[in-house]
Amino acid sequence: MALFSIGVDLGSTNFRAAAIGPDGALLDKISGSTNSAGGREAIVDAIVSAVVTLRDRRAGDQLAGMGIAVPGFIVMEEGRILVSPNLPAMNDFRARDAFQERLGAPVILENDANAAALGEKWMGAGRGVDDLVLLTLGMGIGGGIISGGKVLHGFMGMAGELGHITVDLNGLPCGCGNTGCLEKHASAVAVATMARHLSLGDNLTAEDVYKLAMRGNAEAMRVFECMGQALGIGLATYIQIFNFPLYLMSGGMLAAWDLFAPAMFREIERRSFTYRSTKPKIAKATLGGDAGLFGAAYLPLQTPAAKA
Amino acid sequence: MALFSIGVDLGSTNFRAAAIGPDGALLDKISGSTNSAGGREAIVDAIVSAVVTLRDRRAGDQLAGMGIAVPGFIVMEEGRILVSPNLPAMNDFRARDAFQERLGAPVILENDANAAALGEKWMGAGRGVDDLVLLTLGMGIGGGIISGGKVLHGFMGMAGELGHITVDLNGLPCGCGNTGCLEKHASAVAVATMARHLSLGDNLTAEDVYKLAMRGNAEAMRVFECMGQALGIGLATYIQIFNFPLYLMSGGMLAAWDLFAPAMFREIERRSFTYRSTKPKIAKATLGGDAGLFGAAYLPLQTPAAKA
Repeated sequence: MALFSIGVDLGSTNFRAAAIGPDGALLDKISGSTNSAGGREAIVDAIVSAVVTLRDRRAGDQLAGMGIAVPGFIVMEEGRILVSPNLPAMNDFRARDAFQERLGAPVILENDANAAALGEKWMGAGRGVDDLVLLTLGMGIGGGIISGGKVLHGFMGMAGELGHITVDLNGLPCGCGNTGCLEKHASAVAVATMARHLSLGDNLTAEDVYKLAMRGNAEAMRVFECMGQALGIGLATYIQIFNFPLYLMSGGMLAAWDLFAPAMFREIERRSFTYRSTKPKIAKATLGGDAGLFGAAYLPLQTPAAKA
Repeated sequence: MALFSIGVDLGSTNFRAAAIGPDGALLDKISGSTNSAGGREAIVDAIVSAVVTLRDRRAGDQLAGMGIAVPGFIVMEEGRILVSPNLPAMNDFRARDAFQERLGAPVILENDANAAALGEKWMGAGRGVDDLVLLTLGMGIGGGIISGGKVLHGFMGMAGELGHITVDLNGLPCGCGNTGCLEKHASAVAVATMARHLSLGDNLTAEDVYKLAMRGNAEAMRVFECMGQALGIGLATYIQIFNFPLYLMSGGMLAAWDLFAPAMFREIERRSFTYRSTKPKIAKATLGGDAGLFGAAYLPLQTPAAKA
């Protein structure tokens, strides 16, 4: 009777669920629509149905439990989703207990960026490393911190808001109330905004700006240099604070690595003496969109019962 | 036979040593000259002699060990002082083994700001709190991070360099190579520098500027407002990253709290949604200059042997 775990990565339109072995082997995978228009019950039904399918396909094996990567803030002790901006039906929902009741197996919730960091630590670019920071560079910027092999949660589950630190005190206004957040200067949205400010075009996406830059457009290249500078300021800050050996980046913006990385490394080198003295690794994450799935599946495998 | 521990706070001109009980009671205290002109041997002799005096005064009691708060970077596993900018005689010195040999008791080294953070956690403003950040506001700005009840060291013992994060990307140049470090905008030296830039006087100390501000000088008051703004940016960053329940400040600049705190809180409130949602405590540390002494004494008491 082999042990396995189920990881779920819950997105606002789709979700994915996977059966994963204790050695990190991906055994089975399902995806589906989140049914968010149907409200909380519909979302829970969709996930439970997929998870039951995965479980039933492994009849005879032992399910350690299910981990769910949720795009929102979680009150860890209560297993309660506090706020999920893109899945408001899940706000203030004791999802852990609800899923446990339906499945009859242990359930652990985790914030999606934290789960991705944990996934990279387990099976990705952070294998064998117990202390790392993951930045997710997409439309926004999220983050996860692994300290001593575990997710750093903070006292209300809100640690790791790495996209909302000030990199330019007089920078662009952010929806969070701040000005000059890293997210406003280094995300896909930031790239599009900067391109608009430079009159490159009104409706350009980050990908359009990327293509322009790859064709040698100097202003588009300058946009990615600004992005790299902002990222470098943020990373220098994390390095000065944590002195961790590893800082990973994932997300759609990684495609533009060659355009932003030189400015990023220049900035880190100049701004962080801890970087210069200890030479931590700054690298691309390797699990891509599966990181959260692996991190979610890892959680139930860490409980004493699963380890016994 | 009562258990006690000895804490040493090593400064560049003076050191202090104290015998402290497992309940945090200060039993005995000695201070002396560091003898740094005499080189490494003289420094070690001065400390050993004071520690032996403290120990001999408690003949019949059991010494758990000695902790030393060192102004520098420490390779924790090796008990080696890597660099101590203000005590260069101690650079690249395996001080733990040297002291252990002389004393015949366990010795643990710790960075001074980390020891201060630990001291506040044990017997000061952080009692009962397992996750906190301490900022020391003096001529420079140091920091210590306590996570899960323990000092966060990072992989090379350099975590917690909280004074050297960028708060103004185009700010004042810092000796560390960066521009706009928190230390350059919110330390005693920063206050004097800002006063000079505002033509308040060429040779003013931070205390002079404080006195001017207390007499209502608008420009001197503006200096402390700028200091508060810079501190607020830094604190907002720590709060977004850690979501800890407690952020403490200590050091000589605390005297000016009423002058800088309003701008500091304004900035934190605006820049950190985690602050607004979770309302962590931001407060003065309470042990003053004794924090490092308590933190150092706490260390040997945490070893399995002392706890048994």
